[in-house]
Amino acid sequence: MNLDDLTRSTGEWLRGEGPLSDVVVSSRIRLARNLAERPFLTTASESDQTEIYRCLANDVTAASDDDAMFVDLNEADPVDRDFLVERNLISRQHASGSGSRGVSISARETRSLMINEEDHLRIQGLRSGFQLETIWEEVNRADDAISDSLSFAFDSQLGYLTACPTNVGTGIRVSVMLHLPGLRLTKEIERVARAARDMHLAVRGLQGEGTEAVGDLYQLSNQTTLGKTEAEIIDAFSTSIIPRIVEYERAARDTLAKKQPVRLDDKIWRAYGLLSNARRIASGETHTLLSPLRMGIFMGRFSKFDVKRWNELFLFTQPAHLQKVHGVSMGERERAIARADYLRDRLGDD
Amino acid sequence: MNLDDLTRSTGEWLRGEGPLSDVVVSSRIRLARNLAERPFLTTASESDQTEIYRCLANDVTAASDDDAMFVDLNEADPVDRDFLVERNLISRQHASGSGSRGVSISARETRSLMINEEDHLRIQGLRSGFQLETIWEEVNRADDAISDSLSFAFDSQLGYLTACPTNVGTGIRVSVMLHLPGLRLTKEIERVARAARDMHLAVRGLQGEGTEAVGDLYQLSNQTTLGKTEAEIIDAFSTSIIPRIVEYERAARDTLAKKQPVRLDDKIWRAYGLLSNARRIASGETHTLLSPLRMGIFMGRFSKFDVKRWNELFLFTQPAHLQKVHGVSMGERERAIARADYLRDRLGDD
Repeated sequence: MNLDDLTRSTGEWLRGEGPLSDVVVSSRIRLARNLAERPFLTTASESDQTEIYRCLANDVTAASDDDAMFVDLNEADPVDRDFLVERNLISRQHASGSGSRGVSISARETRSLMINEEDHLRIQGLRSGFQLETIWEEVNRADDAISDSLSFAFDSQLGYLTACPTNVGTGIRVSVMLHLPGLRLTKEIERVARAARDMHLAVRGLQGEGTEAVGDLYQLSNQTTLGKTEAEIIDAFSTSIIPRIVEYERAARDTLAKKQPVRLDDKIWRAYGLLSNARRIASGETHTLLSPLRMGIFMGRFSKFDVKRWNELFLFTQPAHLQKVHGVSMGERERAIARADYLRDRLGDD
Repeated sequence: MNLDDLTRSTGEWLRGEGPLSDVVVSSRIRLARNLAERPFLTTASESDQTEIYRCLANDVTAASDDDAMFVDLNEADPVDRDFLVERNLISRQHASGSGSRGVSISARETRSLMINEEDHLRIQGLRSGFQLETIWEEVNRADDAISDSLSFAFDSQLGYLTACPTNVGTGIRVSVMLHLPGLRLTKEIERVARAARDMHLAVRGLQGEGTEAVGDLYQLSNQTTLGKTEAEIIDAFSTSIIPRIVEYERAARDTLAKKQPVRLDDKIWRAYGLLSNARRIASGETHTLLSPLRMGIFMGRFSKFDVKRWNELFLFTQPAHLQKVHGVSMGERERAIARADYLRDRLGDD
């Protein structure tokens, strides 16, 4: 398997079919791990970093499936790195970092093992819909497999030691990507975001830290990993936080459908009209316009295409995906035209 | 012929086929006339007004074709009055005025004779494209026919006397409706409007005095009627003013096509996408979006429908036309929905 194989599909996390997938786009768990007796990357020299990379690359490859793919990010093309960010397989920081670093990606893209991101190793599990238990099993299994042959920096009092103090403890971060157009249209989104922050959750945009919520996509994640077990953290998401927000969003959609059906359909169909007719369109506008269509599909108010097609449109209109598919590097203006062409081609009356 | 017959067509002036019709939507000439020995409407009592109305209605009817239609505006339904304003057969002031007043409309809507608008009588000729000579012949003939049996207020020094001093003299107003989307997109419209004002022309929106230029439609008209003959006034429009502006607009369109073809097509197709998908849409937005489509048709860049269909869309999406066609009175919200339904019906892939 290589990177070009990935351009033929959307990856498991964008299947749009898991539990609660009308609101929960995808779920993610990642563990932060560092090798014992090696400096954290914050203080490591270039050669330390290369040593860590070599040491981990072997074990990570050994612990991966036969079908897994390993990408040396230091050697990878910038477009390929952005491509992996857009697929949520590496972080933006990992892509733009420097020195020896890489990622092992499992066949269905449900698991990625990032070497020398902020920590020496980050084990990520990612699936569509709300599937934290399944992800946790997979991530936990990978963690066990790798730690068989290596020893991680661990303190009996504090737990796992990490480059950034916010990750010390379990080293776990649980994130759930939510699609909340209903709450934005009923102007309740800020209230819900505030409530989430009161529960010590971080609320972020599509690509994590420092990114804006585009297309009504919000990433909710825990901020503390110390003093609670992994099970407790996951349990809080599974039994209370997420089901409650899903209920709010569904109620907002119901209210709109009952009280403002014309406004709702107008929003959906105007977005479709623009996406299927524009001759140039930016990535941000595309995601903004795709948002009401996802809601429309799940509400049974829009049937020009299904969620599978939506996922393709969502993923393949992003800058690096566009360039990968076209096989050429393109500037912003060229991409805007190529994106509009792609959309018309996919949305044309067939 | 009655008002309902009109709902089946667009009238001659919106045929979109006359000379220079890529830029000149329609041409209009009107003459202001007042009966001698009767008070101007500014000082007339209600019974004076009724007297004037009775006196003129007879002669106007006599001077009209057999197929002409006479509408008593004082008795007409408000929607019918607005309907006539939207067709440019009466002015907004004539519609919203009070007391005895009416209009005689010729079969193809090329001529309307307004009684008790601002003056006792206004003789209007209206045709699509740039046809001032043809209109002038028709208007002049009507003026002669009516003045056979009546005498108009006339001063040998000043010429025709009118309610408002700006109309004294020939009493002629020549207006040309121009579609100038190219000049707006190249940001030259203000410069052209300024030049027109320097030539003592009034620059107004679609429905004359006090209206904004919506949909890139500008009405250019002479402001003085004193000290020049009708022929001189018309000649200035025919030989210099209008051909020059048409050249500017065509040059702007050429520049856009050469230098910014994607921007141009994006503008055209996004407008089409919104018009053919919206579930509610205001009259102003409809005209704004129809503008690039008219340009696109004449530039050969848009062929989903022709100018005949464009004219229908332009006229029948206006508030009174929508209500006339539906046969019911509707508020703004209902109209926005009915307008979107009408547009989708007309623009649907057939």
